[in-house]
Order: sequence, then structure tokens, then C-alpha cells
Amino acid sequence: MVQDADELFMKEAIRLARKAQGKTGPNPCVGAVLVKNGKIVGRGYHKAAGTPHAEINAIKDAGGEAKGATLYVTLEPCNHFGKTPPCTHAIVNAGIGRVVIGMRDPNPVAGGGKEYLESRGIAVTSGICERDCRKLNQPFIKWVTTGKPYVIVKIALTLDGKIATRTGHSRWVTNSTSRFTVHRLRSEVDAVLVGIGTVLADGPRLTARLGRKSRQPVRVILDSHLRFPIESPTLSVEKGGPLWIYCGRSVDRNRKLELETRGVRVVQVQDQAAGVKLGEVLQDLGKHSLQSLLVEGGSGVFRSFFSENLVDEVWLFYATKLIGDDEAVPGIPGWRECFFMDDAVRLYDINVKIMSPKEENETTDVLIKGRLRKELY
Amino acid sequence: MVQDADELFMKEAIRLARKAQGKTGPNPCVGAVLVKNGKIVGRGYHKAAGTPHAEINAIKDAGGEAKGATLYVTLEPCNHFGKTPPCTHAIVNAGIGRVVIGMRDPNPVAGGGKEYLESRGIAVTSGICERDCRKLNQPFIKWVTTGKPYVIVKIALTLDGKIATRTGHSRWVTNSTSRFTVHRLRSEVDAVLVGIGTVLADGPRLTARLGRKSRQPVRVILDSHLRFPIESPTLSVEKGGPLWIYCGRSVDRNRKLELETRGVRVVQVQDQAAGVKLGEVLQDLGKHSLQSLLVEGGSGVFRSFFSENLVDEVWLFYATKLIGDDEAVPGIPGWRECFFMDDAVRLYDINVKIMSPKEENETTDVLIKGRLRKELY
Repeated sequence: MVQDADELFMKEAIRLARKAQGKTGPNPCVGAVLVKNGKIVGRGYHKAAGTPHAEINAIKDAGGEAKGATLYVTLEPCNHFGKTPPCTHAIVNAGIGRVVIGMRDPNPVAGGGKEYLESRGIAVTSGICERDCRKLNQPFIKWVTTGKPYVIVKIALTLDGKIATRTGHSRWVTNSTSRFTVHRLRSEVDAVLVGIGTVLADGPRLTARLGRKSRQPVRVILDSHLRFPIESPTLSVEKGGPLWIYCGRSVDRNRKLELETRGVRVVQVQDQAAGVKLGEVLQDLGKHSLQSLLVEGGSGVFRSFFSENLVDEVWLFYATKLIGDDEAVPGIPGWRECFFMDDAVRLYDINVKIMSPKEENETTDVLIKGRLRKELY
Repeated sequence: MVQDADELFMKEAIRLARKAQGKTGPNPCVGAVLVKNGKIVGRGYHKAAGTPHAEINAIKDAGGEAKGATLYVTLEPCNHFGKTPPCTHAIVNAGIGRVVIGMRDPNPVAGGGKEYLESRGIAVTSGICERDCRKLNQPFIKWVTTGKPYVIVKIALTLDGKIATRTGHSRWVTNSTSRFTVHRLRSEVDAVLVGIGTVLADGPRLTARLGRKSRQPVRVILDSHLRFPIESPTLSVEKGGPLWIYCGRSVDRNRKLELETRGVRVVQVQDQAAGVKLGEVLQDLGKHSLQSLLVEGGSGVFRSFFSENLVDEVWLFYATKLIGDDEAVPGIPGWRECFFMDDAVRLYDINVKIMSPKEENETTDVLIKGRLRKELY
């Protein structure tokens, strides 16, 4: 019974946390409620980095009612001085009677909040709705615990699985509703990535085009032999995020300098037959505090990420049309031998969305999202 | 305003018609309502062949209120003696004041109802919600107007578009919910069809397994060289529909006789490199009053149907998993050259359904349905 009430209030905290999902980077999104005599007396969530944490907002919202109340918070209260003072101190000062935590803080620097609160005589329960609380912040948790960004692969493909015709023509596979959704996704991730083939074929801008104030992700190009053309429209884009090119060790030094002069960050990593070493790329991105990476193609890049088991989540936008040509470019090329249907790679936590067209001549699209790992970070 | 009321009542008639969709063969499904002073006074729909038509049921339901009422009926009332007397006569006898028709009867034998009613002084409006009324009976209309069955292609495939692994292993691609839906679909169509390759590989039963009283479709095998093995489990199935094999002109006569002795109907048609002539097969099925055909594979059969532009509708069951092997069997193999994305074959009237798994170890499936022709029959 108490357990049920705890879950109920934690769900409200989760609902609050979601309000700022994708907007709190590099911080996790967190929600909190204060409950007294079975009633919610305060609500709060973390809105953006540098602003007060969820607990503080909830305590402020509760005013005098905070004293003796129970705090429900999706993530363990921080116990360190960051941009803001430790929430644990504020909780003690507010006279909170009990604290219920969704998940422990995976960040070793900020952790220890539970122990601190207990040392001050506050009862702490943790692990309530833990799975849902973890889901709120998969990129953050992965990055904090592994040092690498959370990898989302986005593919726009036809029902017969093609991303381009035999000539490479691909504008457009999906409708404008789907493409808008991709722009929103770009504005929520820290980096987007394509292979040099896509740059040469399409010269994509790789920007989030949602209006003037769009948050722009770092733009990452995989380019073993540093073939990136100085005159590429990808380089001359206005208002784009920083451009980072990962290439092999033995590339033309002048070309590298020329690109660097134009503001490009050129990073040399180990390369192999299939291209630059992705593990090194992810490590470097993580080192620069990039918690999430959106991989946008092309076919060869998708293959490499799948083949090295580096994909955390897929967003597959199916346009309801058929190319019907075996020579068209497959969206999800093979990366292995598979003999039994039971050995197929499963997707978890499936989410399906119908993307209705905005214009007469567009098809309806179907977005299928799923994670490649059963276990959450 | 009057138009709006007409549409409103026709929509109710459509709703009633749907109650028996898939159960009225070889008749179309039809719904009817009787309206007097803006109120529905009678409802009816056609429940099964040999039972009263929708109009008669609505008139009976209205009782004394039928006199002077307006009849809304999704399909033009029949004007001939079939298994039941002409509805037009019953309408006149009931004293109906006005008749509103969704679509004209495409059947030249049963048609002429509108003219008959008008000749008896009854005002007739036709074409109200015509598109929705046509949608109710696409197989019936196609068969009546072209003499060929309506072709539905059903494919169970992975998100990377495969129906089997490189060894041909395919049990199972989709979950039990999807498979149950296929059994229901089989019970609603007049025939199911597979290629001999599928028979040899899987020995499918091709039955509707929904319980004892399942309606069983005719089972059609495409088998140019009459390789169908006498000992095939497909033949020995109990409670299956009739088994029809279409083969070429020059096949082993003894084998043909042997199969016929076992109750198989063996039909010789023209054959070409790609297999038996599908146009002839469809014509023969239509001649035997089969209005709908479900094509279930394999890959080569799908290709033939697409390549000859014989597909009316597709049901694509996507299992949310990836084979990840270029040598796996593609569900929708190419049948043409396509150079521009704009030339992709579009699907219309898209319908998406999430097929939740019944068992822990199953994936979630996504069913995407669509028609290949913008125009309805």
C-alpha cells in the first residue's frame, strides 16, 4: 500500500521530469514532488543547466509546507557543489522528513546523496520506478558510466528497405512531417554524424532547422582519407554547429591545415579497412562531453555501427512506398551471417508513430523506434 | 445542410455494413437505415448470402414507421430475383418516400434499381459517401467488373526486409498475434496462394486456424513443372480448403493423374520463364467465383505479382528485429529499374496496427496495410 503510493507520486515526478527532456544537457532531466499527508504540496523539475535543480524548485513551490514532507525525486539528490550548491543540504535545511529516490546518481562526483541524508537522520527509500527513471536519461547515464555518447541511428527508408535509388537519388524518401521530427531530434542530441560518402553525394547541412533559436549539434564527418572538399556546402552552412572531421593517420597535411583554417576540427584516429576506428571516435566525442550522437548515414556507416555493436537505439522512418529495384541502396545493409530466425537482433521498448503527410503528394510515414539492448544503462 | 444529414445517415449505414464484412461472400456487405423526421427508425445489414438483404432488414426493423421514411443504403438496391426477391419491389411496397444510395450496383445483372424506383415515383439520390461505400466491397467490385479476384499480398518480414535467413529458416518471423491475424484474414478471403518453393521448403497447411468452424479458403499452388510431392503435408492436411495446382502445359501426365486421384484440381495454363502465366491463373480463379486472393509467398511469387502489376493491396507485418545478413531472403525483391525516388510505387489509404506480443520471448510487430492503386474499384 505504501509502495503503491510511492509509485504514484514517483510517476508524477517522472511526468514533471519529461517536461524538459532534451533541454537540460549536459545535466540529466529530473522531476520532484513534495507530499504531505498524502497530498502533493510542491512540484518542480530541472529546466536547464545552470538553473536550480528539481528538488530546489519543488521545495520553493511548497513554501512553508515543505517541513516534514516527503520528497519524491527521480534521481538521487546531488551531494556536491557544481553550478549550484548541493541539494542534500537544501533538503536537510527545509526539514524534509523522508526522501524517495527513483535511481541512484550514476555520477561518482555528484553521488553519495543517500548516505549524506541518512547520516542526517532522514529516511531514504531508493529504486522506486527505477526503470522508468533510468529511461529518462539514457544518454546521460551511458556517458557518465562509459565515457561514450549514446548512439541513435536514424534511417529514412522505403517499405522495401531502400534509402536511395540505384543512382543514389534520395530526395525525398520521407514526408515533411518526418523530416521536421528529424530536425527536432537533431536539436536534442549533442552531435550528428555522417560518412564522407553522404557529404560528397548530398552536401547535407546537418543542422536543426526549427527556427532561429534552434540548438545546433556538433557535426561529425567520418572521412578516413580526408576527402572532404573545401567547397562543400556542408562547410559553408551558416548557423551550423561546429564541424569535426575524423580521419586516418596518413592524410594530406596541407588539406588538414586548410580545413582547420576554416574552423574545422580535424581529428586523426586509427583507421582500418572499413574506415576510421569508431571506438576512438566515440571516446573522443565523450571526452568533449557529448552525451548523445545521431548517426544519419549512409549505408556503409550504418553497417559499421551495427557490425561493431555500437548502436543503442534506432529511429526507422518508413515511407509507405516501394522502390522495387534490387540495385537500390539498402538502408540496413548486412554485417554478419545469420542462419536461424531466432538469432535475429531484437529491438526493445518499441514505439510506433504515424507521421501524417502535410502535403497532398506526400506518403504517410511510419516511425518505428526501439532500443537494441534489453538492459538499460 | 440536407447534404450533411445525408452523409451522417449514410455513415451509420456504412457502420452497419461493416458488421458483416468478410462474412457475406459471394455477396457484398451492405448496410441500411430508415430515417423519418430526422430520426433513425430502422436499421439493417446483410448478414450472409441467402439471408435477407440490408434494406429488407431495415424495413422489418422499422415496422409501421417505414411508410414515408427515407432509406439510406450503401449499395443500390437490387432489381432482380436472386436467392431473394428484388429489394426494389419491397421498397415500393413499404411506401418508402426517398432513397439515398452510396454507390450504384456494379453488377449488370442486379443493377437498374435506381431507374426502377424513379419509375415508381420515388426520389433517388446516389453517390453519397461513395468512396467509403466502395471501400466496403473492393474484392466484390473488382470481381464483378473485371472477372478477376482482388489480390492481397501478405508478407511477414524483419525491419531490414527479410522473410528468411540465408538457409531459408523462417519460423517464426512474426509473433503469435500477427499469425492469428493472418488466420483470420485467410478465413475472410476466397483463396490463398503460394509458390511450389514454399511448399517444398515449409509444407504449409494454408488453412485458417481459428477454431472448428473456420471458413477455409481454396488453396492455390503455382507449380510450373508439377513438382508437388504426393507426400507433402500440404496435401494431407485435414479440414483444409480444396487444393488447386496451376502448372504448365508439358508436365508429367501420370503425376497429374495421381494428384487428381487424391482430390487435387490440377490446372494447366501457359507458362513462361518466370513461371505460369498469372493472368490466366487469376482469370480461372475469377471464373470459379473466387473474389479475393491472398498471396503468401515466397519471394519469387511476390516478385512476379509486383512485376506484372497485379497487386491490389499489401499487408506487411514487420517484426521489430534485424537479420543483418545480405544473404538473407528479401521479402520484397526488386522487379524493375528505378532511378528517381519520385518514381517509387506509392501506397494509399495506409493503415497501421501495433501487434503486441502474447508471449515474453516474442517481439512487437507492426502491421502496415495499404493499397497500390489510388483509384478504387
